Amino acid sequence: MRSAVVVGTGAIGTSVALALTRGGVAVHLADVNSTAARTAEAMGAGSLEPPKEPVDLAVLAVPPAHVAVELARVQAEGLAHAYTDVASVKARPQQDLAAAGSADPARYIGGHPLTGTDRSGPLAARADLFEGRPWVLTPSARTDRAVLNRALELVALCAATPVIMDVVAHDRAVALTSHAPHLVAALMAARLSDATDADLRVCGPGLRSLTHAASGDPTLWQDILRANGAAVADVLEAYAADLADAIRALRALDSAVAPARERAEGDMRRLLARGARGRSHTTPKPGTPPTDLTPVTVTVPDRPGILTQVFTAVGDIGTTIEDIRIDHAPGQGQGLVDLLVHRDAAPELARLLGAGGWSVSG
Amino acid sequence: MRSAVVVGTGAIGTSVALALTRGGVAVHLADVNSTAARTAEAMGAGSLEPPKEPVDLAVLAVPPAHVAVELARVQAEGLAHAYTDVASVKARPQQDLAAAGSADPARYIGGHPLTGTDRSGPLAARADLFEGRPWVLTPSARTDRAVLNRALELVALCAATPVIMDVVAHDRAVALTSHAPHLVAALMAARLSDATDADLRVCGPGLRSLTHAASGDPTLWQDILRANGAAVADVLEAYAADLADAIRALRALDSAVAPARERAEGDMRRLLARGARGRSHTTPKPGTPPTDLTPVTVTVPDRPGILTQVFTAVGDIGTTIEDIRIDHAPGQGQGLVDLLVHRDAAPELARLLGAGGWSVSG
Repeated sequence: MRSAVVVGTGAIGTSVALALTRGGVAVHLADVNSTAARTAEAMGAGSLEPPKEPVDLAVLAVPPAHVAVELARVQAEGLAHAYTDVASVKARPQQDLAAAGSADPARYIGGHPLTGTDRSGPLAARADLFEGRPWVLTPSARTDRAVLNRALELVALCAATPVIMDVVAHDRAVALTSHAPHLVAALMAARLSDATDADLRVCGPGLRSLTHAASGDPTLWQDILRANGAAVADVLEAYAADLADAIRALRALDSAVAPARERAEGDMRRLLARGARGRSHTTPKPGTPPTDLTPVTVTVPDRPGILTQVFTAVGDIGTTIEDIRIDHAPGQGQGLVDLLVHRDAAPELARLLGAGGWSVSG
Repeated sequence: MRSAVVVGTGAIGTSVALALTRGGVAVHLADVNSTAARTAEAMGAGSLEPPKEPVDLAVLAVPPAHVAVELARVQAEGLAHAYTDVASVKARPQQDLAAAGSADPARYIGGHPLTGTDRSGPLAARADLFEGRPWVLTPSARTDRAVLNRALELVALCAATPVIMDVVAHDRAVALTSHAPHLVAALMAARLSDATDADLRVCGPGLRSLTHAASGDPTLWQDILRANGAAVADVLEAYAADLADAIRALRALDSAVAPARERAEGDMRRLLARGARGRSHTTPKPGTPPTDLTPVTVTVPDRPGILTQVFTAVGDIGTTIEDIRIDHAPGQGQGLVDLLVHRDAAPELARLLGAGGWSVSG
């Protein structure tokens, strides 16, 4: 690939442009928002000059609802030899394209890089945003082989891992693993909107972590949910059926009628077991079973600089830390730092930190 | 307080015993599980000898369903001058006591220390488990003033923050902020129990964090949900009504009929806004608005020892780290470490880490 146009200089588009520029590709930037475009240019993402001849690849980094219209427009201009997009929903844009009838489906391949970030705007862009992340490509039956290979080259230049999927399977997968969970968390957060002071006194860090999703950009989420509404509704309907079972079981768990109580206990046990099984599917590191890791917990006073001191101490000891959980006790003077290390290394780390005057358990 | 009995030497009971022993109180331990009791004794939590005369306070650290029976038993023995428990549900034990009729309600006060831990067994105990945490006390109209003051002394010896609440308000609060969120997360995890390989390829760290609750002890949760079933069911019924609205809106968000579409958009917008408002109520540090903190993101290769190297580098620089988020890209060679620092300190930290050869953004 020698030349590319990136249409849309938000966090994703600008990150693609930075990665391509780093890879030696001549990148042209376009955005209806000229401030965003100029910011991306100033960051070294590419040039605001339009290309003089068709580029090798045009990347449409515009909201899902705009992909079809934008693709029709740039294909009519003959902007590029191949076209892709980065929208987080894939079936709907493809239907829009088919309905529009004007675009050239052979030269288009859908794409969706999964970055896990929810930051927006060109200043949130990074050339390495996609490194090691999955990047779904959804070639249709009509997509040219050359266009697929161009998209694979894009993914490689961004150091991401390509995953070829069907548009429907993709949308179902993100509905299940991203869009439905977002709503499930946002609706739990909504229950807190009229919480009393007493309720909030007993509210801990687990709840804050669970409801994190509810702080996402509502306009973006409205767009995503519109474009993938049916698939998300399917997941949530199955969820609602389980929820109705759970509510029924909760009402009967202390029933005086033994058969009703026993049925409720069985139903609740099955729901919790299914949750544990599903949870196990999300295990972070294939090849590193969680049982190999064990936490060493350090209790620290909640004052400036204390985490730095912990990390310096751990760095001095030289144990490999696999993960960290920090548990503030807000405004209450103490915090917990869980250092997750391999089981074999835990006793020695605990001993050395303890010898260094730290309050350690685990 | 000079003497106490702790009945039940799990994580909570043993932690109470350790804190009281540290505070100079003569602690006697009792547990039907003699291995647990001996472990607690070996940890220095107290003595297995029964007291020769009534102690100042008996702390019942037994499962919620056993509190009433155990209280009746130890009150009949004249074990102590005052009695409390640590069960995470409060109305049900009180009803059981009233129904049993044998216990002395004036000498009993309900208690619930909120530790935020889900570890179990005496080895998970720590003298400082309760430091800075809320400890709810639920005196009834019949509780003696002296018994309330004894419980406040216990809370002070454990360095926790006492919160006086009515039993019903307590159970409603923990249903809303802990028990219902647990089920909401477990049911989302249950949806993943038949996820396909394709689904799991697009599964990211946000989902793992959301479904963390589903890895909790199912037997303990069954007990908690039984004891607080009605309050949890009330929260989940309101949740289910919102969920039904969300599903209806999702099905109509791309309706061709303008009024239906606009109504769906309005409904979804209101649900998301209510989620954001509820989320804002869980804000971690009163007095430290989240906008004062900004992340400095370091991209690191996913290899042993790398986190230690990052922390050593940060420790050398000396910036105060307020929080850390680690975002593994499982098996894909890269990870992201977000170092949350005060806005003013971020540019310098980023500059110095960058100068040290780290791949930094933010």
